[in-house]
Amino acid sequence: MSGTLTILGTGPGAEGLIVPEADAALAQATDALGYIPYLRRLAPRAGLRLHESDNREELDRARHAIALAQAGGRVVVVSSGIRGFRDGRGGFRGARGSRPQTHPEIAVIPGITAMLAAAARIGAPLGHDFCAINLSDNLKPAETIRHRIRHAALGGFAMGFYNPRSASRPDGFARALDVLRETCEPERIVIFARAVSTPQEEITVTTLAEARDTMADMRTVVLVGNPETRRIAGKGRDWVYTPRSWPAL
Amino acid sequence: MSGTLTILGTGPGAEGLIVPEADAALAQATDALGYIPYLRRLAPRAGLRLHESDNREELDRARHAIALAQAGGRVVVVSSGIRGFRDGRGGFRGARGSRPQTHPEIAVIPGITAMLAAAARIGAPLGHDFCAINLSDNLKPAETIRHRIRHAALGGFAMGFYNPRSASRPDGFARALDVLRETCEPERIVIFARAVSTPQEEITVTTLAEARDTMADMRTVVLVGNPETRRIAGKGRDWVYTPRSWPAL
Repeated sequence: MSGTLTILGTGPGAEGLIVPEADAALAQATDALGYIPYLRRLAPRAGLRLHESDNREELDRARHAIALAQAGGRVVVVSSGIRGFRDGRGGFRGARGSRPQTHPEIAVIPGITAMLAAAARIGAPLGHDFCAINLSDNLKPAETIRHRIRHAALGGFAMGFYNPRSASRPDGFARALDVLRETCEPERIVIFARAVSTPQEEITVTTLAEARDTMADMRTVVLVGNPETRRIAGKGRDWVYTPRSWPAL
Repeated sequence: MSGTLTILGTGPGAEGLIVPEADAALAQATDALGYIPYLRRLAPRAGLRLHESDNREELDRARHAIALAQAGGRVVVVSSGIRGFRDGRGGFRGARGSRPQTHPEIAVIPGITAMLAAAARIGAPLGHDFCAINLSDNLKPAETIRHRIRHAALGGFAMGFYNPRSASRPDGFARALDVLRETCEPERIVIFARAVSTPQEEITVTTLAEARDTMADMRTVVLVGNPETRRIAGKGRDWVYTPRSWPAL
C-alpha cells in the first residue's frame, strides 16, 4: 500500500512560526528529507529517519521521497517557507515521468516565507503590491533577472529578493542594484534582513544611494520599498511601512 | 504604564494554519480589534474584550488600538494573512501624528497569506518569481492596476490577485482579464481559489481563454501562472506547478 508524501515549510527559523499542520505532519512522519540545515532543526525522535541532502539535489531528493512513500512511508520533505515551493516543484517534476496510479497521496503545507517574516519585523514594507524575485542565476539567465527587476520597478511594486549573493555568485546583487539605480530614485528604502527570527537576526534599513552589494549574503532577504514607502520613528526604533493608497496620476 | 500592541494574521481560515506566536499573543490579550469576520473566528474567553469594526475603518481601528494600548492594555489587531500587512499600515499611519515617546510597544506577527495557502493546495504555481496585486481600486487608480498587471505579465511573473471582484466593484477582475489577454497566451493557466482551507473551499483550474470574470468573488484569490506553468496528472486529481528554471532567450 502506498504511503503519503507531505511537502512542508518550517518557516524562517523560530519554532513559533511553524504552523500546527506542519508540526502534526512531522509528528507522524517515518521519513524526513531535506537540505541539511533544515533537517538539523528538527527534534530527533525514535521512528523518524532523517535523509539529509545538499542544495541543488532537489530532483534526486524528490525521487527518493516518492520511492519511500510508494514503499508505504509517511514521508515529509522539509523546507523553509519559500523552499517549500521549490521542493514542491522538484517533487512534481520528479512525479512527472511516472504513472499517476502509482503516485502516493501528496499534500503541501504552506509556511511563513522569509520575505514576509522580514517584512513583519520592520513593520509593513510589503503592504502594497509587491514582487518576489530569486536573484540566483543558477537556473535562469542573468538577463531574465535584470528584465524582471526593471519591470517590477517600472510597475511601482515593492520587491523582495531571495538569494541575493553567495560565494559562488558574488555579483548577482551588484547587478540588481545597478538596475534599481537606473529605475528608482536614490532615496528609495532598502532593507537588509539577515537570519530573520533566529538569534543571529540583523536588520538594516538604508536607502538605495547608501546600499552596497556586500551588505547581503545567502542568509539575507533584501526588501525594496515602492516610491511611497516611508520610515517612521517609533519607541526606541524605526519602522518602515508602505501606504495602502497610491496617488492618482 | 503603556501596554503592548500586536498586529497579527490568523491565516486563511484553518486553525492548523495559525502560527504559535499568534496563538500566544491571543492567549494573553486583553483586547482584540479587527474586521468582523476575523474576530468571529476567535474562541471567546473571559478577560478578552472584542472590538469589531467594519472594513474600510482601518485608521479608526488603529487609533483605537493605540489608545487602548496606551491605557495599559495588551492589544491585538487581528487580520487574515494579508490583512495583517494592511492593518499594520493603518497602525503605523495612525501612530504617525503622535510623539514616539507615547507609543506602545509594537510587534507584528506574520501569517500564512491566502495567496500562498491557495498555491499550496494546488501544488506549486508560485514556485518561480511572482507578484501580488490587489485589484481593488478603492485606494489606487484603476489605471495603476492595469499598469501593474501589464508589467507583471511583461516581466514573466506568476501573479496572485487579491480582492478580484465585489458587489461594489463588479468590473475590476474583468479589466484585469482584458490586460492579461493583451499580454499573455490563451493557454496561460488561471486558478480560482475560493475560501481556501475552510469547509467552503473550492478550487478551479482553467486557462486564460476559458476564464470568466464571474468565476471570482470577494472570497476568491486568483493565481495566474507564468508561461512555463503546467498541469500534471496526479492520483485522482491534477496539480499545477511552475518550474524553477527559466529557458535562456
